[in-house]
Amino acid sequence: MKNILVLGAGRTVPSLIDYLAKCTGPELSIRLADKSEQLALQKARNYSNVTGLQFDVSNKEQLNTEVNRADLVISLLPVKFHFEVAKSCLLARKHLLTASYISEEMKSLDNEAVGNGVLLLNECGLDPGIDHMTAMAALDAIRLKSGKKIESFVSYTGGLVAPESDNNPWHYKFTWNPRNVVLAGRETAQFIRNGRYKYIPYHRLFTRLEPVKITGFGDFEAYPNRDSLKYRELYGLDDVQTMLRGTLRRPGFCQGWNILVQLGLTDDSYTLEGLDGMTYRDFINTFLYYHPTKLVEEKLCQYLNIEPEGEVMKQLSWLGIFEKTAIGLDQASPADVLQHLLEQKWKLDPQDKDMIVMQHQVGYQGQNGIEKLKTSLVVLGENPVHTAMAKTVGWPLAIAAKLILTGAINDRGVKLPVTAEYYKPILRELQTLGVSIIEEKDHSSLSNP
Amino acid sequence: MKNILVLGAGRTVPSLIDYLAKCTGPELSIRLADKSEQLALQKARNYSNVTGLQFDVSNKEQLNTEVNRADLVISLLPVKFHFEVAKSCLLARKHLLTASYISEEMKSLDNEAVGNGVLLLNECGLDPGIDHMTAMAALDAIRLKSGKKIESFVSYTGGLVAPESDNNPWHYKFTWNPRNVVLAGRETAQFIRNGRYKYIPYHRLFTRLEPVKITGFGDFEAYPNRDSLKYRELYGLDDVQTMLRGTLRRPGFCQGWNILVQLGLTDDSYTLEGLDGMTYRDFINTFLYYHPTKLVEEKLCQYLNIEPEGEVMKQLSWLGIFEKTAIGLDQASPADVLQHLLEQKWKLDPQDKDMIVMQHQVGYQGQNGIEKLKTSLVVLGENPVHTAMAKTVGWPLAIAAKLILTGAINDRGVKLPVTAEYYKPILRELQTLGVSIIEEKDHSSLSNP
Repeated sequence: MKNILVLGAGRTVPSLIDYLAKCTGPELSIRLADKSEQLALQKARNYSNVTGLQFDVSNKEQLNTEVNRADLVISLLPVKFHFEVAKSCLLARKHLLTASYISEEMKSLDNEAVGNGVLLLNECGLDPGIDHMTAMAALDAIRLKSGKKIESFVSYTGGLVAPESDNNPWHYKFTWNPRNVVLAGRETAQFIRNGRYKYIPYHRLFTRLEPVKITGFGDFEAYPNRDSLKYRELYGLDDVQTMLRGTLRRPGFCQGWNILVQLGLTDDSYTLEGLDGMTYRDFINTFLYYHPTKLVEEKLCQYLNIEPEGEVMKQLSWLGIFEKTAIGLDQASPADVLQHLLEQKWKLDPQDKDMIVMQHQVGYQGQNGIEKLKTSLVVLGENPVHTAMAKTVGWPLAIAAKLILTGAINDRGVKLPVTAEYYKPILRELQTLGVSIIEEKDHSSLSNP
Repeated sequence: MKNILVLGAGRTVPSLIDYLAKCTGPELSIRLADKSEQLALQKARNYSNVTGLQFDVSNKEQLNTEVNRADLVISLLPVKFHFEVAKSCLLARKHLLTASYISEEMKSLDNEAVGNGVLLLNECGLDPGIDHMTAMAALDAIRLKSGKKIESFVSYTGGLVAPESDNNPWHYKFTWNPRNVVLAGRETAQFIRNGRYKYIPYHRLFTRLEPVKITGFGDFEAYPNRDSLKYRELYGLDDVQTMLRGTLRRPGFCQGWNILVQLGLTDDSYTLEGLDGMTYRDFINTFLYYHPTKLVEEKLCQYLNIEPEGEVMKQLSWLGIFEKTAIGLDQASPADVLQHLLEQKWKLDPQDKDMIVMQHQVGYQGQNGIEKLKTSLVVLGENPVHTAMAKTVGWPLAIAAKLILTGAINDRGVKLPVTAEYYKPILRELQTLGVSIIEEKDHSSLSNP
């Protein structure tokens, strides 16, 4: 009998809990802890071996008590709480799993984790998580089996709506944290292409796109992510000539989003004055020059060189930014206002399904010059609870937890799932759950973001 | 006999010291303190009543000793040191003058300053300084004399080269701190125009220009400064419909500068990789998409929609950004590299003269609708020592010091020179030194940044 403590009962939990509660092998007992007792009880109620409870992470005594009862802890809390949880796990000598990016303070616990025989496994969700595992599986297959040198690695991931739910001119709805989408990329993108370092400032990011095709799912476009350069070391690709990671959207999204960026609507650095009573039309007007008679639409088209009858204006009109509708906020940054609007417009309807898409493109030295391997992964949501996002974040954590508790994974220290010990069994199990990698036949050349 | 302590012997000092050393009224003795003894001695040597000395602001004992010897302190140190100096002045009950923007911690000393009978006068240089004084003189003249309501206030200032030294396609050279010019405006510009709040993100700032004319000195263009809104309270214009402050450049400058901003060359948030051995041409290429055969010039023109034979390309070529010249830096941000290049290209030659230009545009309720008052101020440098910048920063401080020591100014507390007690005598004295305000006849309407 093994005990798992799950901290946080948010959107990832259904798929995670479902896998763990039903998995065979060790007998598992799960305590699901959330600051909302109601949420914890509700998500636990269908499972005889899951107990929901009220939990306050700032209550150290409760944290230590719960960690002590468990054999392994999975933290789905916001990233800022992971360090406190990790320290409690070290004290109690319990393993910890998260799907969050590793922090510097988490890294600093490595020696202690090794010394205490504890595994603190980070970045074991989708992105980060499955991206690492599928990347390393592809790279190792080339390097270890054939000894061939990797010349380029390009990787894209996107959380989108399933084709059947794609019914707005943005071809996009929020399938995860809206705030992260509104503030996405607010940092210079850094990558290397054909041996040349490339930097793209935020305000140009959504104009530097690359077309991507995924068999059976059509066309996408990608914009580069923040810092791709650091993945060279992580993936053992120090001499790689091209290293680029990006985010996937459906074609046309970025052209419209770029207009919102150009206006300054994604700015989160100041509070708007005079917001009380303002309409969305007034809001847009604050980012345009003053003119005594010209319409907001007219000024916007002239300012940003937009076709008055084109696709972008359709996207913008559909959002309702030209409407005299009261915003209903009184203290907010431009990004807050935009998020408030988008949460109404890009909301998933109950019948909507989401979709995760990922593609890796690897170039390596073959016998006849550069050869290419292109692998894709597409996961569709089942329903509003078992979304593609919940499955692809929750399952890797759940699978890793099981593998650790059964002793199939014996690693210790502060780790990421980038070695075969992790990716082989986790990807194998994901495949049985329907998350599988497709090798693409079309190896047409890359364009130039 | 009165003693003045001047902290910092930088570029403002010659005009400041010259005025103080020669001024009649109280007999003055000046101690000029700088971390470089050589600099302090050199700048003191022509005056029998000025003593140069080595000084370390982090040495509290020395700071307190020097402050104690003085009747009044003028700090020309970087703004971060003013608070320490102010605390020492409060302890010793000595007045302090600076030409820097007031900080929140400086404001917090107000009660103590009043209690100790001390004046801590901030923003008493050019910009901030003469801008406040000339603005308040114009505004008060309208409000106090006629009781008329101010509807709009627009104010522009620029530090440029004198027409005779204007000999490059940017019509610009560094006449002050290059770093401030490279990083200028990296914050959303906020203002109000005709009752509408307006916000311009940094990446659009240099496209939202307003033409400005100054009689006898021709055409300028202005881009909006960071936060104009806070000046409403400072100038007693809470209900004003238009409040806008901006920076003046010669026409064409902003169009070229905008290209540097669009590329990302003014970004100071990260360190470039692979900089060692890079040429300026390579540097520009890191901000452009990869292409196997296209030239850097060709890619740049396509990327940012620049005419290959136009003025902007002339400006860029003149800077040498397409040349295969080694940069010679190894750890630097894009802004550092740009500054390094510009310091070579926009350097004032020994025979060059600088120029300060300022214009206020006030609109107020007259008998026949809105009436306008437009005042300009132009100051030309005399030589590389007594530049227009040194005179317009140094003289207001020097004049204020004299007025305080003679008892003509009796204010106490933490202050800015925005009341008649300051601006009347200081502007009168500046006029005798040749810094005078011209009323403009041309009242043509404003355009729309």
